[in-house]
Amino acid sequence: MDIRYPGGKKYQVPKLETSGQKDYGNRGMTFEEDINESNKYYLANGIAVIHKKPTPIQIVEVDYPKRSAAKIKEAYFKTPSTTDYNGVYKGRYIDFEAKETKNKTSFPLKNFHEHQVIHMKNIIRCGGISFVLIRFSTTDEVYFLDGNMLLKFWERMKAGRRKSIKKEEIVQFGYSIPIGFRPRIDYIRVIDSIYKEFF
Amino acid sequence: MDIRYPGGKKYQVPKLETSGQKDYGNRGMTFEEDINESNKYYLANGIAVIHKKPTPIQIVEVDYPKRSAAKIKEAYFKTPSTTDYNGVYKGRYIDFEAKETKNKTSFPLKNFHEHQVIHMKNIIRCGGISFVLIRFSTTDEVYFLDGNMLLKFWERMKAGRRKSIKKEEIVQFGYSIPIGFRPRIDYIRVIDSIYKEFF
Repeated sequence: MDIRYPGGKKYQVPKLETSGQKDYGNRGMTFEEDINESNKYYLANGIAVIHKKPTPIQIVEVDYPKRSAAKIKEAYFKTPSTTDYNGVYKGRYIDFEAKETKNKTSFPLKNFHEHQVIHMKNIIRCGGISFVLIRFSTTDEVYFLDGNMLLKFWERMKAGRRKSIKKEEIVQFGYSIPIGFRPRIDYIRVIDSIYKEFF
Repeated sequence: MDIRYPGGKKYQVPKLETSGQKDYGNRGMTFEEDINESNKYYLANGIAVIHKKPTPIQIVEVDYPKRSAAKIKEAYFKTPSTTDYNGVYKGRYIDFEAKETKNKTSFPLKNFHEHQVIHMKNIIRCGGISFVLIRFSTTDEVYFLDGNMLLKFWERMKAGRRKSIKKEEIVQFGYSIPIGFRPRIDYIRVIDSIYKEFF
């Protein structure tokens, strides 16, 4: 299967969110970094514009000193009501969440907040493309799981059954994404192959 | 012109970003609140899923006390690299920025950061719908200006000419949005009328 990317022009790359993380020592690239690098690649090559949303924060106290930047002195992390990544590919709305687990045989659904799952449902109803990227960190495997499939496993949990997705179910219903060089995690390739009727 | 909204089901409404603002006294609704209310309306009626992005913040120091939530003790506001609002309508990627001015005869372009304008350009190239909502606060008028038009005025400024858009240009090239009850600022109605070929 060929991937046809629209246009071919180089864009000026805006500075991207890095979530304040800077130093990874010898740990290599994190999953989030891999995704951000992939998004930078898509952006620089005019393929897609996908950004990670800033972490939602509740600000309580801000100091406005003279002659220097406003300093936030008290704030708290808020539970996100949406997914972390969204943007545009060929005019379509793209929306996803990225999660990793150290588990070897299953992916625990407690990795998602109820709000995020409701958000995914809303996105799908409005014609957007919703999915999750799941990384099994011990084996460095990444899977693409369509939002509709995630909703099914979520419903199964709400019905009082499994609180996780078996790895073999992810293998069966998801799509394995080999780790590449550029882009590191080519999820657009999966979108191209499974949502053909959308474009 | 009739507006045809897809589906008609009520959704469960996720909690929305409110930017930490809570008390407006007798000031009435702010522009941001009006837009957030409109987005809630679109969401609750299954029309569109549009959220305001959280404010990007650079976290410097976090305290992790036992038995209570992590407390951010030092952080700074970052310059946003994208626009404030994005989401999905009929499968399409929607992206916009909302700005208001106290000026009566023009809208100063210094309200935008270069990064945001580059972001708009990228969105348009990838087939997304990009626009700005401009409010003249003294007269409480709101205009919808397509991203392509904004880019033209931006280029004019970069060429050393006007650093603002004349109000009469906004009236001529934009679309006036009457303030309604539900939704307060019905920008989807404008999208429906001017981007017909997109759907």
